[in-house]
Parts: sequence; structure tokens; C-alpha cells
Amino acid sequence: MNGKKMGDEHPLLADMYSFAMMQGYFLNGIDKDVVFDMFFRRHPFDGGFTIFAGLEPLVDKILKIRFSGEDIAYLESLGIFKKAFLDYLAEFRFKGDLYSMEEGTAVFPNEPLIRVHGNIIETQLIEGMLLNYINFQSLIATKSARIALAANGGGVVEFGLRRAHGVDGAVSGTRAAFIGGVGATSNMEAGKKWGIPVKGTMAHSWVMSFDTELEAFEKYAEIYPENCILLVDTYDTMKSGLPNAVKTLKKIKAAGEKTFGIRLDSGDLEYLSKESRKILDKNGLEEAIIFVSNEMDEWIITHLVRENSPIDAWGVGTKLITGDKDPALTGVYKIAAKKGKKDYKPCMKITNNPEKMSNPGVKEAHRFYDDAGHALGDFICLMEEVPELLEKIEKKEPLTFCHPNLDFFEFKLKGYARAKRLLGPVISKGRRVTEKKNLSDIQKKAEKELLSLDGTYKRLINPHIYKVSISEKLKKVKKEFITNALETH
Amino acid sequence: MNGKKMGDEHPLLADMYSFAMMQGYFLNGIDKDVVFDMFFRRHPFDGGFTIFAGLEPLVDKILKIRFSGEDIAYLESLGIFKKAFLDYLAEFRFKGDLYSMEEGTAVFPNEPLIRVHGNIIETQLIEGMLLNYINFQSLIATKSARIALAANGGGVVEFGLRRAHGVDGAVSGTRAAFIGGVGATSNMEAGKKWGIPVKGTMAHSWVMSFDTELEAFEKYAEIYPENCILLVDTYDTMKSGLPNAVKTLKKIKAAGEKTFGIRLDSGDLEYLSKESRKILDKNGLEEAIIFVSNEMDEWIITHLVRENSPIDAWGVGTKLITGDKDPALTGVYKIAAKKGKKDYKPCMKITNNPEKMSNPGVKEAHRFYDDAGHALGDFICLMEEVPELLEKIEKKEPLTFCHPNLDFFEFKLKGYARAKRLLGPVISKGRRVTEKKNLSDIQKKAEKELLSLDGTYKRLINPHIYKVSISEKLKKVKKEFITNALETH
Repeated sequence: MNGKKMGDEHPLLADMYSFAMMQGYFLNGIDKDVVFDMFFRRHPFDGGFTIFAGLEPLVDKILKIRFSGEDIAYLESLGIFKKAFLDYLAEFRFKGDLYSMEEGTAVFPNEPLIRVHGNIIETQLIEGMLLNYINFQSLIATKSARIALAANGGGVVEFGLRRAHGVDGAVSGTRAAFIGGVGATSNMEAGKKWGIPVKGTMAHSWVMSFDTELEAFEKYAEIYPENCILLVDTYDTMKSGLPNAVKTLKKIKAAGEKTFGIRLDSGDLEYLSKESRKILDKNGLEEAIIFVSNEMDEWIITHLVRENSPIDAWGVGTKLITGDKDPALTGVYKIAAKKGKKDYKPCMKITNNPEKMSNPGVKEAHRFYDDAGHALGDFICLMEEVPELLEKIEKKEPLTFCHPNLDFFEFKLKGYARAKRLLGPVISKGRRVTEKKNLSDIQKKAEKELLSLDGTYKRLINPHIYKVSISEKLKKVKKEFITNALETH
Repeated sequence: MNGKKMGDEHPLLADMYSFAMMQGYFLNGIDKDVVFDMFFRRHPFDGGFTIFAGLEPLVDKILKIRFSGEDIAYLESLGIFKKAFLDYLAEFRFKGDLYSMEEGTAVFPNEPLIRVHGNIIETQLIEGMLLNYINFQSLIATKSARIALAANGGGVVEFGLRRAHGVDGAVSGTRAAFIGGVGATSNMEAGKKWGIPVKGTMAHSWVMSFDTELEAFEKYAEIYPENCILLVDTYDTMKSGLPNAVKTLKKIKAAGEKTFGIRLDSGDLEYLSKESRKILDKNGLEEAIIFVSNEMDEWIITHLVRENSPIDAWGVGTKLITGDKDPALTGVYKIAAKKGKKDYKPCMKITNNPEKMSNPGVKEAHRFYDDAGHALGDFICLMEEVPELLEKIEKKEPLTFCHPNLDFFEFKLKGYARAKRLLGPVISKGRRVTEKKNLSDIQKKAEKELLSLDGTYKRLINPHIYKVSISEKLKKVKKEFITNALETH
């Protein structure tokens, strides 16, 4: 690094209040250790699962935080930061610990996805960037998984560059889409940056820049015989596009090529795909693939697949890369504990809305599985309970799973086959302690996670609610905290 | 530039099909001049106007396009690009012309916002980046304008970093929000990059990191007496937060400070703001401002303002920076004309949906105003008609405004006071020919534009539809084109 800024580090990617509080702690000599949890309260898209994404780039970013002279000069120009604090920032390095779920994990409301331990100043600085990375990428990985599930084995290509939210909305969004199950992208910058396969054929402008549609197809086929997908809807799909494509593809096939087909980008895709398939087959073009695009989402794909539309691959743009009508995972970063004289004291925000009550204390999450490898439920307990929990798991003892808010909804989990600790160390004292994960491996992880979920959780309409329960002890701590809170403050 | 990459140029921010077509044109020796239009077909948010934004950063980006050795090596690694084409890219500079509406202009469906003239290869390269920048920033500038109008003079602060789509979704999004009328942001990186005022106070974690709420408030007031906004909902707004805030603010006021107040971040904001106002006033804190946040949008703000909730300023996050349920302006980039032997020949994509038929040819747009400076309608004609049009305008002659699709919806525009040409040159032969605009000036431009629109266009529900009409000649060309299209192709 040579102490120099490399271009995209943005250590100022934080809310003003973070800096105001940081200076407040600094000037008051408050540098106590605290624990923050990142979690979310509801799945996007009224879905039954969320795919956790954004971790690897976030870790890189946190470890690269350095305030340049320019950054310090900017902060100074605001006229509210004291020299001592600016000097502190000039030397700032993140030296805390970060525990996290693995990227690609299927995650659920109200469980900690990331737990940050550190002094209150550094933990406050990273709030904005942490939420920005995880909320966005998890949102898009989740949308992508829903779309890939709907496509039911058909290929999905990410097509969203032109509607994505800025450069990074496109480039990081494509990364997340790949994690969720998309196989390729049209976005060359994302292809280069993340090693994601790139795909693309022609636009209407290609067809229109020649005198006739047939000439446009033939010229394209001359240059790209190995992967010749012709866009057939510039003038009239059935009357012009398809007949011209058939002529061109027959020549391609006669020349021995294997990968060719058509793209439908408008009109009634069920009707057009079925009619096109008949005509292609009748002309001996059984291998020709039918690729469709045009405002696709998981709902439309599901319908087309159920009606046996002969569609081989899907280009999905706007609704994937933006999250469509639900464009934010509303994850939050809340203080869970602060170090007292001896040990961590739990803390939480009190509200009149029980759904919004966070779980206090330093917590661990375990996922329980049956013999077949299906996830049965997640269990959140205090860190201090873990040794006892592991003993019980070893002996396959029944465990009491409490509802996070409702007293009458507790049950005993019996007959589980195994359990897995969900949060692991990623950064320890400011250093990365896990190897950087390969993006393909993260995609495979997400695929396995989806297989571990019963189909009822993956339903588009009214999915089954996966249980995230808390321990009896955590429940007791939470109740005491709520009862005492108002008296103390 | 020294031929080196500076970090965020991303010349590969383009769809794969652009490169496939570019090579196709290149290898076929097709470098004819063409004209592309950027336009959109419907306003976001079911609104009556859109604020055009993203132009200045787009122009910077287009002029900076350089393919580095790394970029070329990446393209080569894909195995489909020939050496001659890669050599061409290594020397690539954008040398075309770009005409555009001014950034901050109120714009409407089916009129050209940007017109690009150049050879077909370079015009195809910039499609993805042009749409990415303009679609996103115009979307957010529009959302921001709607929110600022709803706030009716109250201050609006952009709070969306944690829910924005990646780094650029936050940083470019904030730029757009500022253009639309937001006065400040919590995002420090955006503050530094664009010179936007930054604002922020404290999080719940500040309050929770002290033993009592009162201590947290007092410590904050010690460090930030000049701008002391206290977050009152960590434990219980009325029973704890407000009484503690009153104690702290009275001291601040006694010490002679002028700017202080409270922030409400949960609960019923109408009730709480009215109750808080009474208590603040009763305690002699009439100057205390009431700042609210928590899932604000133009609808909620409109309601609270109409009910006379005593709210002075609004923090707006997720729903502003993402566009909420309508997170994409679906702008497109379509070829409108190609150079023939002598002059430009109009072209357009034919579809079965008349709403999706673009307007062919090289076109100019004019806006007509009445005496009071209110916009009356926009008029699109062919470039060749402009001299005649200007003569008619000079003489205030009535003009025939044709509906773009429906024959019976034409009318004569009479009694207009003046007209203004909407598209102006920004890049000419690869060089910027206008001065770079200052962001505050763009914000002022947008404000003036909104003032020039009658209130009926700014209504949240069923806004009046602003008329974008075409000339008789353009209509004739369009009809002929559609009639002839199928026979030719």
C-alpha cells in the first residue's frame, strides 16, 4: 500500500453520525470494547430464505481502511473535528475481530450474520460500509437464487447493467447474482473483475444497421459461427425474424456448428417459444436453442416453465439487478454488548414493537440438520452457553427452542443428526484469519445451502417460516433487560 | 493521463453484445455514421415528470475511455476477438458528438434526452455506460424532487448509505438526490466527492454505550453544543427520551446556543411530533427543531405535512436512494438514423406495440412557454425542419402538435410566449464543448424547472400528462417507415 490511496478504498464511506460519535468517544476517553451484531428482520420478496453475500469484498475493504491526507483535509474543512481526533484517524487501522456466516449461507431473520468485536470507535466506523455491502449483495444473491430456482435448470444470464444503480450497482450486483445461481453476465467489467463468464449476442441496432434483416443475420453468422444466437424480433418475429433465422441457422448447421439459436425479446413468450420450436424443428434445427429476455423475473419464468414453454435460457436484467419492487434488504447493525469491569454486559434497543427488539448479549448461532441433511432450525444462545450446548449435541439430547418473543411457542428439538456452528472468525485483531474464498466456491456453497432447505421454504407464495429460536437463558436475559430498562434510564 | 488507468474508468462497463457487434462492424469494414437517441417511455413512480441527471459524470467517463493492457488482455482471453480489433481498441478514443438536455431539466417520455452522433462502433460502445449513468441518476433525482416537494420547504437530508446499491449506488445516488432537491447527506464520501453538505448526529448505540440516556445526551452536548440534535427513542420517547432531552437542551440554550433539537426515529410521528412540540415549547425550547426519520417517502411526508405535524426536517434513506418500489428508470438507447450516400436515413424498431415505436430520424426538441414562464408542451421535429420552425416561432405562428401515435389527438398551439431548444452540444468530435457544470447550479436548474411546471404535473396521484408532440412531417416519416418496413426486410 505504501500509505497511498489506491483509488476505490473510500474510508469515508460512512455516515456523518459515525464520525460524530467516534470523536465523541475519543474526546471522552471512551475506548471500551463492544460487540455489534449485523442482522435483518424480514426476508426480501416475501420469500422464505435469504442468501448471505458481500462478505469477501467487505473484509478487503475493512482491512484497507486508511485515511489519506486528502480525507483528513476534507474532515478538517468541516470545522467540527479536533486535531487530536484527526491525528488518530490518520493512523487508523481496524484492529478488531469479525466473525461471520460463510458467504453463500442461507440465512434468516433475527440471527446474527456478522458479529464485530472491537473498541467502540472502530466498530462504529465500519457500520455504513458493512451494511452497504451486505444488504445490497445479499438482496441480489437472494433474487438471483429465486430466479435460478424458477428456471429449474435452464441457464440464466445477468443482463442488468443498463438499469443497475451506478457502476458498483452493476459490478458488485453481478457478483451477487453469480453467487445466487446466475451462470453468466453481459457485463464485461464484472466479467473481468470477478472472472464470471460473459455472454451476449446482438442488439436491434445491429439488425437495423444493415439493409435487410437477412443480411444482418448472415454477417453475424460469418463472424460468430460457433455461438450464433440471432435476435428475431426487430421487425416481426413470426413473419420476418424466424424465417430469416431459419435460413441462416441451416447454413451454420450444414457447416458443422453445434451451438446456435434464436433470442426472443418481446411479445408473448409462451406462444412465440412454442411456435418457434415447431418451426425450428420442422426445419431440422432441433439443436437450436431458444433464449428469451424482456422484463423477466421469477414469477414469469415459473409460469413459462410450468406451461412447458420450450425455453432453454433466460436473460434477466432490471428485476434481478435492482431487486424490483423490494430493492433493499433492511439489515441493521446494533450494539449487543459492552465490556464492563469484568465481562460483557448485554445491551439492546427497547421499542414498543416486540418484532423490533433485538437479542442482547454476545451470541452464537447453530444450525441443526436431520439425517438427510435437511436444515431443521437455527438456535441462538449466549456465547457462555456454548460448551454446555456442545455437550448436549454430542449426546443428542433434546433442546428447548424458545420463540424470540412469544412465550407459548417453545418446543423441544429431538432426533437431530448433527449441528453446525454458523459464525466463524474472519478477521482477528485486524488480520484476516481465513483464506480468501473463490467466487465459484461461494456459488457452490449457496447451491448446497438451497438443497439443504426443504422445498416449502423456497415456495414463491406463502413460504414456510424457517425457525430461528433462542435459548431459555437468552430469553431470560432479554426479558430481564426489557423489564429493567426503563427504570435505569 | 499518461496513457495509464486511473482507477475508476471501467472502459469495459459495457454489455458483451456491444463488443460482439463492434467487432462485427469492424471486421466487415462498416464504420458508417449513425445517430442514437436515449429516451424513456414512462415516468417512474407513476409520476408526471422526471428530472434528468447523470450527464456530467457520464461525459467525463466517455471522454476518459481508454483500454489498458489489462483490459485488452482480458478481452483476448475470451478467445473471440481478433488481433486487428484489439489493436483498434487499444487506440480507441471516443471521437463522436453528444447533444443533450441540460442536467436538471424536467423531461418527459418519448423525447430524446441525449442524441449521439458518431461511427457505429463508438456509438455502440457507450450504450451500457450511458444508460447506467442516466437511468440511475435520473431515477433518484426524480424521487428526491418528489420528496423535496412533499416536504414543502422543510429540509431533507439523504440517509441512504446503508441501503444503497453498493458504493456507487450510495455516492452517485447522493449526487442525484442533491440535484433533485435534498439539501444535505449523511454520506461522508459523497460529501467529499461532490461538495454536498453533510449532516448527522448520533445512533442508538451512542445512547446505549453510556450507563444512562441522560449521561449520553450530556456528553454529546458537551462536544457538539453548536448543533445538538438528540435521538430520543432509544428506550421510550415520551417517558425517557424527551424529558432527558429537555434537561440537556435547556442547559444548551442557557449557554447561548441557537441550533438544537430532537430526532424521532420510530413510533407514530404525527402524534409524537405534536406532543414533543408542546413539551419543548412548555419548557421554553421554542427554537428546538424536530427532525424525523424512519422509512420516510413522499407519501408519508405529504400526510404529515397536511396534518400540520410540527416537523422541521426529514431524514430520508432507503426509499430515496433505491427508488423504493420502482427502482429503475427504463431508459433505452435506440438507433434513429444511419448515414446513407448523401444524408441520414431514418430508422426505427418496429413492434406490435404502438407505445414502443420509437420516433425515427435525427430530431430536435423544443419546449414552449406561456407569458408566466409555465411550460406548455414539448415539440419534436426533424432537424431539417428547425429553420422553418424557428421562423414560425419568431412570428408566433400557430403550430400543429401531433400525437406520436394517435391520429385524432392533434392540436394547434397558439399564444405561446417563447420556445427553447432543449438539446445542446456537449461533446463535439470527442472534445467537451461546454463548461463543466457546478452541482449547486444543476440543483438550482432543477428547482427552476419544477417551478416552470404547473402543479397538476407534480401531483402524486394521477398527475396531468405533459404533452410531448411530434411535427406533421415527423409523423409522416414514421408512418411511411412502418408501412414499408415489413416489405423490405
